Amino acid sequence: MILTNATIATMVNANGNASFGLVHNGSIVVVDDKIQWIGKSSELPSHWRSSEESLNCRGRLITPGLIDCHTHLVYAGNRAREFEQRLEGATYEEIANNGGGIVSTVKATREASVEVLFEQSLPRLKQLMSEGVTTVEIKSGYGLNSDDEIKMLHVAQQFADEIGVRVSKTFLGAHALPPEFHNDKDGYISAVCEEMLPAAYDAGLVDAVDGFSESIAFSVEQMDRVFDVAQSYGLPIKLHAEQLSDLGGATMAAQRGALSVDHLEYLKSTDVGKLQNGKTVAVLLPGAFYVLRETQLPPIEALREHHIPMAIASDCNPGSSPVTSLLLSMNMACTLFRMTPSEALSGVTIQAAKALGMQDSIGSIEAGKQADLVMWDTDHPSTLSYHIGLNPCTAIMIGGNWKKHP
Amino acid sequence: MILTNATIATMVNANGNASFGLVHNGSIVVVDDKIQWIGKSSELPSHWRSSEESLNCRGRLITPGLIDCHTHLVYAGNRAREFEQRLEGATYEEIANNGGGIVSTVKATREASVEVLFEQSLPRLKQLMSEGVTTVEIKSGYGLNSDDEIKMLHVAQQFADEIGVRVSKTFLGAHALPPEFHNDKDGYISAVCEEMLPAAYDAGLVDAVDGFSESIAFSVEQMDRVFDVAQSYGLPIKLHAEQLSDLGGATMAAQRGALSVDHLEYLKSTDVGKLQNGKTVAVLLPGAFYVLRETQLPPIEALREHHIPMAIASDCNPGSSPVTSLLLSMNMACTLFRMTPSEALSGVTIQAAKALGMQDSIGSIEAGKQADLVMWDTDHPSTLSYHIGLNPCTAIMIGGNWKKHP
Repeated sequence: MILTNATIATMVNANGNASFGLVHNGSIVVVDDKIQWIGKSSELPSHWRSSEESLNCRGRLITPGLIDCHTHLVYAGNRAREFEQRLEGATYEEIANNGGGIVSTVKATREASVEVLFEQSLPRLKQLMSEGVTTVEIKSGYGLNSDDEIKMLHVAQQFADEIGVRVSKTFLGAHALPPEFHNDKDGYISAVCEEMLPAAYDAGLVDAVDGFSESIAFSVEQMDRVFDVAQSYGLPIKLHAEQLSDLGGATMAAQRGALSVDHLEYLKSTDVGKLQNGKTVAVLLPGAFYVLRETQLPPIEALREHHIPMAIASDCNPGSSPVTSLLLSMNMACTLFRMTPSEALSGVTIQAAKALGMQDSIGSIEAGKQADLVMWDTDHPSTLSYHIGLNPCTAIMIGGNWKKHP
Repeated sequence: MILTNATIATMVNANGNASFGLVHNGSIVVVDDKIQWIGKSSELPSHWRSSEESLNCRGRLITPGLIDCHTHLVYAGNRAREFEQRLEGATYEEIANNGGGIVSTVKATREASVEVLFEQSLPRLKQLMSEGVTTVEIKSGYGLNSDDEIKMLHVAQQFADEIGVRVSKTFLGAHALPPEFHNDKDGYISAVCEEMLPAAYDAGLVDAVDGFSESIAFSVEQMDRVFDVAQSYGLPIKLHAEQLSDLGGATMAAQRGALSVDHLEYLKSTDVGKLQNGKTVAVLLPGAFYVLRETQLPPIEALREHHIPMAIASDCNPGSSPVTSLLLSMNMACTLFRMTPSEALSGVTIQAAKALGMQDSIGSIEAGKQADLVMWDTDHPSTLSYHIGLNPCTAIMIGGNWKKHP
């Protein structure tokens, strides 16, 4: 398959967040599942010029497949009623006393069969894919026991097998305290370390290990225990850190070589230098910032100055970010966080690939990488961040296969 | 056509903004273009029970067709490059000096043929319709001379004729000062009153007359002159008022019996009572609030107390609200303005109908009204405001015709 006459945002560049790596009048040669050649159409080697499988893109934009590197999209039920009650004046306490909050999602997810969980989560995945997402990270974290955490990760694996989307599966046992361990966070962390993570690992369903370090969740020391076990298995780690307060979790995780530290609204500018290890990505989640009406901005300028890669993700979850649009997340990154459109697109391609440890195979349009491509009915990549609620995606290819035909 | 076994949000209620008017296990009988009967399926008159054209909705939600009562969706070009430059640090002055801002949209719209204007605007209309919009208000205001204002309204009329969506066409000559009238606002208003509005009216393309009262646009006195002419033709009036500062435009327009006053962030709570005339609707535009990172909220609580109907619209425009999702506008109304999901749905149905003077024929599910209906793959209307970026719309009917088949 040869794509010709395209405007190509390769996202290949030396400066991390700085440019789209645009090629005008470009061509891409796809052989099997990989990109074989990319460059100016005028420089296309002659033996490919007469290919029968050639598609004239008529100047349309091609980008790498989008990567949503932080989601909780597998869950049962929804929290619309709670959303409504809160707007009608109910307090968080009243909602919690009525069984609302994360506990209600844990209950619904535990009660759901694999089939129900698959069926209820699929529309969220499909909505993301309809806007060009070709790789999605999916976390566990609403099971909070071995069987139900594994059930969630199993559904994530089913999406890869049956839908053909790339899935990175993250074990997030240390997400919230289940009711069985009321007032015993250390006891639950022991269960995570000694039973749940080993069981999920043995099931072959763990690509990375994540946790939530926050006063309403777990301490940095408790997360340190979980990461000891994760790293003893050779698993990469990630951390929800500094979302609501500054506990120092991001620094701890970066010092352990984490793939990413996520949220970061309350990370001090003066601490950003401590993340600098040539590896750890700052994953910014403007959907949660928007839903929670947060006013404390993540330290974007300091992240830029220290050349920390910045990724953007939907944080799709039923409570703080019921978001299933990565394009909207890009707009929110620009509008709310004052990131540039090139930082936003970089944040859902090459930087998001780094946040999943997949930058050698996806995230940019380069010879040798997987042919994960999106075609857009637009002529410039900045329009992807500018529009709000418009979906100009006209075709999607994953590993050389069209998932949505042009 | 008989729809059975539906959850129906009729939006019929006595209290204005207060409830969904839900009917569970409901049926709707559509004859020709109208709703003939609506009620409990168990109470469906027997002569309709054996209809061949019966559709079992399996508990899915049916709402009135959504109404986007404030848009500027007909325009040429886009302002993505300007969006990018601003985020890269350019000042408003630098952008204006480079020909950016509304002037660039006026230039592109004037240069566009009817065909190009239609083609470039259509994706925005289609995106709105894909999420259940059956009626859309479209303003002129980027032509700023008789021919180009009429060209814009002509394209709006073409949408009605060729796409089959209901369109309400609003003349917005008093939107911005065109370059030809530099430093002569009064002179331009004279042209609006004496040439442009009469020409558009004679072309039969004006359903209402709108204006922008703001220091960067026109004074309340200048708008008063335009409304004198509008009302001499018997045309209803509307006004962009109190968006950036408090000039008193909303009070003036309401005292003249305006259909709506729109934006209202800077309307004082103590002035809200002056809008109370049993007619004027407050049209709230959270997309522009979001894009401009406004922090001054419209006086929602005072509007509630004075029983002023509140509508919600996308404000789709290339500068301050490049929004083509009315569902997202509903979520923003809840998240940013703390409106309730029932106020939000009411705001894009019955209250939006009032803002267009169309409440006798659309906006709720009642016998005798037009059969403008949307079917959603959800069981409760609050989910429409809760989700961000998910489109559960499965079918759309306008005037008894399926526009999207179930």
